[in-house]
Amino acid sequence: MRLAIVSTGHTKFGKLSKDIGNLMLDVCNQALSKANADISAVDAIYISNFSSSFTGQCHLPAVLASKLGVDKEITRVESACASGGVALKEAAISILSGLYKTVLVIGVEKMCDTPIDQVTQILASAASQEEIKHGATFPSLYALMAQRHFYEFGTTEEHLAKIAVKNHKNALNNPLAQFHKEFTVEDVLNSRVVASPLKLLDCSPVSDGAAAVLMTTEECACKFTDSPVYLIGIGHDTGTIDLKSRETISTMPAVKRASAKAFAMCDLMPQDIDVAEVHDCFTIAELIEIEDLGFCDKGMGKGMIEEGRTSIDGDIPINPSGGLKAKGHPIGATGVSQVVEIATQLRGEAGIRQVHDAEYGLCCNIGGTGATAVVSIFSR
Amino acid sequence: MRLAIVSTGHTKFGKLSKDIGNLMLDVCNQALSKANADISAVDAIYISNFSSSFTGQCHLPAVLASKLGVDKEITRVESACASGGVALKEAAISILSGLYKTVLVIGVEKMCDTPIDQVTQILASAASQEEIKHGATFPSLYALMAQRHFYEFGTTEEHLAKIAVKNHKNALNNPLAQFHKEFTVEDVLNSRVVASPLKLLDCSPVSDGAAAVLMTTEECACKFTDSPVYLIGIGHDTGTIDLKSRETISTMPAVKRASAKAFAMCDLMPQDIDVAEVHDCFTIAELIEIEDLGFCDKGMGKGMIEEGRTSIDGDIPINPSGGLKAKGHPIGATGVSQVVEIATQLRGEAGIRQVHDAEYGLCCNIGGTGATAVVSIFSR
Repeated sequence: MRLAIVSTGHTKFGKLSKDIGNLMLDVCNQALSKANADISAVDAIYISNFSSSFTGQCHLPAVLASKLGVDKEITRVESACASGGVALKEAAISILSGLYKTVLVIGVEKMCDTPIDQVTQILASAASQEEIKHGATFPSLYALMAQRHFYEFGTTEEHLAKIAVKNHKNALNNPLAQFHKEFTVEDVLNSRVVASPLKLLDCSPVSDGAAAVLMTTEECACKFTDSPVYLIGIGHDTGTIDLKSRETISTMPAVKRASAKAFAMCDLMPQDIDVAEVHDCFTIAELIEIEDLGFCDKGMGKGMIEEGRTSIDGDIPINPSGGLKAKGHPIGATGVSQVVEIATQLRGEAGIRQVHDAEYGLCCNIGGTGATAVVSIFSR
Repeated sequence: MRLAIVSTGHTKFGKLSKDIGNLMLDVCNQALSKANADISAVDAIYISNFSSSFTGQCHLPAVLASKLGVDKEITRVESACASGGVALKEAAISILSGLYKTVLVIGVEKMCDTPIDQVTQILASAASQEEIKHGATFPSLYALMAQRHFYEFGTTEEHLAKIAVKNHKNALNNPLAQFHKEFTVEDVLNSRVVASPLKLLDCSPVSDGAAAVLMTTEECACKFTDSPVYLIGIGHDTGTIDLKSRETISTMPAVKRASAKAFAMCDLMPQDIDVAEVHDCFTIAELIEIEDLGFCDKGMGKGMIEEGRTSIDGDIPINPSGGLKAKGHPIGATGVSQVVEIATQLRGEAGIRQVHDAEYGLCCNIGGTGATAVVSIFSR
C-alpha cells in the first residue's frame, strides 16, 4: 500500500468559540486551500467523531454537506478515542477499492461547552458499562493499569511524570497546542491526585478542535503537492472492552496486534521509525504503548524515558506535537491530528519542533483502555 | 460490482429484554449458524448504530469483541437513520479493496428503555439544530414535506393512509414485525393527529432490534450457501441537513442522486426492480421516495397507491416486510433489516409474504429528512 497524504488542516486545540459544523468547515478549507484544490476535487469524506452527547448533533455528514453547500458521499465513523485512526483506515480502504481517488478525513470534537461532570459521564460511554456501574472512570481504569505496570516492572510515578514534562515541553513549540506551559517533575508529582498513582498532570485535558488530512492515490498526488507523505502501512484491531477479561492489564493486546499488521504491511521494523505520535491520554498509556509497539522490550519503557530516548532529540522522539497531554485531546480529532503532525514532520515543515531528518513516522491511536487500536506508518 | 450476501440474521423488532451487546451477538450467531460458519471465517465487522444516548454505550466495536470473545477489525458507522445503508456500503468497499474477503454487517438500536420525551430529543439530533431550536421535530418536518406534496401534486391524507394500511397488512405475514394488526383507511384517518396532516398511524414506532448480513466475494460464496444473493449496485449521497436550504421539499435530492448512482452501477432501470424495501419512517416518506427512485414520474406516487401497484401482488411491491411503519424502526438496524428482507425475497424464502418470482430487489435507506440516502440493488 502506498497512498499519498497531500495536505492537512488543523485548528488550535482548547476552548473554541466555533460550533462543530464550522470547526469541520475550517479544517476542510485549510486542507483544500493548501492543496490549491476546491471541494469538487474530493470524491468522499470520512468524519471521525466520538459522541453526539457533547453537542446534541448526530448526522454530522449532513451537517458538513450543508456547510460545504454541495452534496458528497460523507460517512461518520466512531470507535471511541480511536475514531480518527479508524476514519483514516476507512478512507484508505475506499481509495484501494477503486471507488474514489481523493478522500478527505476530518476529525472533530466539541467538548468544552459541556459541564465537566457530564463530560466524565460521556467519556465513560467508551468503557464497559459493567465496570462503570461499579464506580470506574477512565482515570481510575488507567490508574489500575499503572499500578499493575509498577508492580510488574518497577515503573514509578517519576517515570510517568517525566512523560508529562517531555510532552508539555514539546507543546511549547506547537502554536496549535492547548497548553504552553513548562512543568517540572516535581510539579507533576505535586499536582492533585486524580486516581492514584495518576495526578492531574498525568491526564490529558478536555478540548475542542478539529483536524483534517487530504489523501489520494500515488498517481494523483502531484496534482496537489510536490511533497506528499505516504501511508505505507495500517493495522486495526478491536479487543475486549473491559479490563477484567484481559489476561494482563499492563499491556494492550490490540496495540500489539495492530502494530504487527502495520509493520508487516510495509515490511519495516520498530527501529526503522524516526518519529511517532503515541496516544497519551494518560502518561501511563504512552509508556505501555511504546513497549507494545516494539520500541523497546516489555517493561523497559521506563529506561527509554530515563535515558531521554523519546525526547525530541532522542533516537525515537515520541509526541513532538505535545501529544494528547499538552496539545489537547478533542476525542474525534485526535487520531487525525496525529497524522497531521507526522505528515508535517516527514515533510520537514515542523519548524522549531522538527525532528532531524525524519524518514519514517508512526501514529498509534487507541480507544477506551486500548480495546481498539489503529497503528499507521508513513514515509516521506 | 457483484458481491454475495450469503446469510442473514434478524431479531424480532419491538420492545426487547436483551441489552445491545446481546442483540448484536444474537444476529451475528444467527448469520454464522445459517452459513455453517464460525466467527473465524469473518475478516471484519461493520456495526450500524445511530445514537449512544439511548444506552450510554459508545465504542460498540469493543462491546461486540467482548461478546464474541475474539479480537477482530470492527468499525461503527453512523449517518442517522441511513446508518445501516452506509455500513453496507463500507463493508462492500472493504471487500472491493482486497483487504477482506468476508465481512459481517450488523445493525442495532435499543430505544425502548428510554423515556419517550428523551427519545424525541435524541431523534432530533439527526436534524438541523437550527430547525430544532425553533420547535421542529421529525414528525413536524415530514408534515411540512407532506403539506407541500399535497399542494404541488394533489396528494391527500387518504393516499398516505393507504400506505399505512398496506404496510400493516404486509406485516401480518412477518413474524418478526413489531405490529400484527390490520387497520382500515378510516382507522388511520381517525387516529390522533401528531403533526397535521400526519397522524399516529402515519408514523413508524420506537423499537429495539438488530439485523445482520454476511457478505463475501462471488468466489467465496459457495463456502457458505448454494443460494447467494448479489449486491450489484450501491449509491450513497449526502445533501443539506436542513429543509430550509432545499429548492423543494416535496422531493429528496439525495435519493435521486443515490438512486442514479446505484442504477448506473448495475445498468438497470427502475422498471427492472421486482420488489423494494423503501424507508417509510412516515407514510409521506414512502410516497416521495417511490417517485424519486423513478418507479413513477414525480407527483404520480398517489396513482401507484390508488391502483394497488405497490401492494404485495402489484407490479412493484413496496415493503413486503411491513416496512418501518409496521415491522418497526430500531434506527441503526433498519438499513440492514431492509437488506435481510430483500435477500429473503430474492432467495424465495419469504413464505406467505413472498413476492412472486422476484429477480431484482432494491433497498432505499434514508437519514434525517432525506439528507442522507443509500440505495442498493440486488439480484438473485
